[in-house]
Amino acid sequence: MPPVAPRSGDAIFANVERVNAELFTLTYGAIVRQLLTDLEEVEEVNEQLDQMGYNIGIRLIDEFLAKSNVSRCNDFRETTDVIAKVGFKMFLGVIASVTNWDADGTCCSIVLEDNPLVDFVELPDNCQGLYYCNILSGVIRGALDMVSMKTEVTWLRDVLRGDDVFELQVKLLKHVPEEYPYKDDE
Amino acid sequence: MPPVAPRSGDAIFANVERVNAELFTLTYGAIVRQLLTDLEEVEEVNEQLDQMGYNIGIRLIDEFLAKSNVSRCNDFRETTDVIAKVGFKMFLGVIASVTNWDADGTCCSIVLEDNPLVDFVELPDNCQGLYYCNILSGVIRGALDMVSMKTEVTWLRDVLRGDDVFELQVKLLKHVPEEYPYKDDE
Repeated sequence: MPPVAPRSGDAIFANVERVNAELFTLTYGAIVRQLLTDLEEVEEVNEQLDQMGYNIGIRLIDEFLAKSNVSRCNDFRETTDVIAKVGFKMFLGVIASVTNWDADGTCCSIVLEDNPLVDFVELPDNCQGLYYCNILSGVIRGALDMVSMKTEVTWLRDVLRGDDVFELQVKLLKHVPEEYPYKDDE
Repeated sequence: MPPVAPRSGDAIFANVERVNAELFTLTYGAIVRQLLTDLEEVEEVNEQLDQMGYNIGIRLIDEFLAKSNVSRCNDFRETTDVIAKVGFKMFLGVIASVTNWDADGTCCSIVLEDNPLVDFVELPDNCQGLYYCNILSGVIRGALDMVSMKTEVTWLRDVLRGDDVFELQVKLLKHVPEEYPYKDDE
């Protein structure tokens, strides 16, 4: 049987409860500003955002699985495809693409052209080391952790740093497939 | 001419960009948790949330005025009505009501039955002094400040504290009506 094709997130996005994107953007901006005030080093802010994202990701995966009706993914390649095409659409209303696969299928890039987190944002000179959207890498890492995929997620390109798109490298470190007492197809 | 009736926020809400409400809820939860970790006193967390809300409110008012096509409000009563019926719908997707007016029309309550900020939230015992949604009071205070209304916004009821609804008391302290060189009707 061929792998189940990931579904478009459009229909799902239309049917979930939503809030105004600008409110979300400004609220996220308020968090980042708060962390920049409270913590001394930009590097600590990056870590904190990543950790917050991780905590969100491990919960968001439940909503994702419940609402998306996505079938169990067979491998890492299929999983990242679902994240990019269904997950991003379902939660942020934007679509990402997956590219730059390595030869053994354990490392790829998720590329995002549009990103509501950064509307109206410009980094001041003293924040050049900041990964403003680091919460996203944490969310992905947390969500994947809950489906037994340990990953490392790193920013390769960032519009706020002058790049033309956002590019997140997702590297699979370890995959412990769950053992089911039954098969999906039976 | 009678005052312009505030419009329903439904049509506006349908036409603005939105993100998944659960992502917003979890992100907000992550802020509150972060502040509880970083700050010593719950009272400081309340203040910080209020201040973050204020900073959001002074920017959100622009989006509100640009997208809502609400005409200039004539008085405090009309303004609070617009906040409750259009503002809450436009940003959070819920409708609030205005009640408990005092005799001279400078103090009222905004009552909210549904509030996406608190989905899945329960306050642990050591956070009983927390006003979890204090960002909302700050947003209202900030937005009103930008239309020359200085207010004091206080929680009277809070579902997380065992009440049946959320009730925010909004008290007008000072109103400096702007002077226009022209009249709206001309």
